[in-house]
Amino acid sequence: MSGVPAVVLVSGGMDSCVTAAVAALDHDLAFLHVSYGQRTESRERRAFEAIADHFGVRLRLAVRLGALARIGGSCLTDESLPVPEADPGRTGVPISYVPFRNTHLLATAVSWGEVLGAKRIFIGAVEEDSSGYPDCRSAYFEAFERVIEAGTRPGAAMKVKTPLIHMRKSEIVRRGLDLGAPLHLSWSCYQAEEEACGACDSCYLRLKGFSEAGVRDPIPYRLDPSRPA
Amino acid sequence: MSGVPAVVLVSGGMDSCVTAAVAALDHDLAFLHVSYGQRTESRERRAFEAIADHFGVRLRLAVRLGALARIGGSCLTDESLPVPEADPGRTGVPISYVPFRNTHLLATAVSWGEVLGAKRIFIGAVEEDSSGYPDCRSAYFEAFERVIEAGTRPGAAMKVKTPLIHMRKSEIVRRGLDLGAPLHLSWSCYQAEEEACGACDSCYLRLKGFSEAGVRDPIPYRLDPSRPA
Repeated sequence: MSGVPAVVLVSGGMDSCVTAAVAALDHDLAFLHVSYGQRTESRERRAFEAIADHFGVRLRLAVRLGALARIGGSCLTDESLPVPEADPGRTGVPISYVPFRNTHLLATAVSWGEVLGAKRIFIGAVEEDSSGYPDCRSAYFEAFERVIEAGTRPGAAMKVKTPLIHMRKSEIVRRGLDLGAPLHLSWSCYQAEEEACGACDSCYLRLKGFSEAGVRDPIPYRLDPSRPA
Repeated sequence: MSGVPAVVLVSGGMDSCVTAAVAALDHDLAFLHVSYGQRTESRERRAFEAIADHFGVRLRLAVRLGALARIGGSCLTDESLPVPEADPGRTGVPISYVPFRNTHLLATAVSWGEVLGAKRIFIGAVEEDSSGYPDCRSAYFEAFERVIEAGTRPGAAMKVKTPLIHMRKSEIVRRGLDLGAPLHLSWSCYQAEEEACGACDSCYLRLKGFSEAGVRDPIPYRLDPSRPA
């Protein structure tokens, strides 16, 4: 370990849980959780704290962004827009897209990282086999690194690490299992907080990943996850 | 006017006040104010509302970012770090720099702009004759436009307009006077809320601008602004 912490964005979902396990291989960890008025924010916060406890992370910061819920435009932050069931044939940007959300997350990570002296920001974004969100593409993260270079103090520039970006969900499950990531502590569902709904986009992708990896997802589901997807 | 609003970041300071006047020449206006726990946030909010009233802006959004005060690292957000008096000979990034702040502001503007269908974001950043903040340089804003292109919905890309970026402070004062910008409603001081201190970096630059423009600043100062700078 370098003694210089890497900032890891930990939503509490499966992808950030595995990303934390990857970051832990080579770095001391600083865990950042950003909630933004999404439906399941208290459940995600619990997952964040549990994953941080698992990794023994002392440097942790949980902040709440009020702006995104005020702005709306997404079924995750606007209660008047229902969370749709997953539809694998659907194309385009889904209604769960929170406009430009990852820029808020990265901005917070970089501000904190600049004060901590961090050199790496880890985020568990997945481009393929995933959401269709424009701010989850590698081109976006590459462009963001240029903003960090131009917009921080001399010598403060941080790299953005996206170790899962080109993985399929099943590969993420397997990588997590290989690294001993605490997948049982993670939470991915977009709409429920006690038992995952099993029907939203996020549950669909997670269950598909476990199914293709040939492993049973350890978290509780309202719908039986062993049914055909 | 196009009917499509431009989002204008309005802190309430002189530069954003003049920027709003420039934007008003060609656009309907949507005013965004982001406070972040800075010392003078309630005074700046009052200036924002007064300037919005002046321009008759109906679309206005004022949000508060808790994260930057939690993160600290700046005399504007950390009460344990005193606001220094201006020192024109000082080089480097000043202690009033709030790490990566403008990225939080632009992220909020883009999220709101994406929901509004805006095509322009205006920000009153000044590169020369100014603060030395890394996130006020044109290279930073150019890099940020690439992030908007990569990280928003197809067709949503917005341009970032920085009409003051290469102006001297005295040119900003003159441009504001030419456009009838309500400079008497603006507030720039970093540390005081009733009478501007006249001594901080921001007061120094503002007073220097008025002095070089040969005009008296209409706002109240604790120190006499007619003294030699």
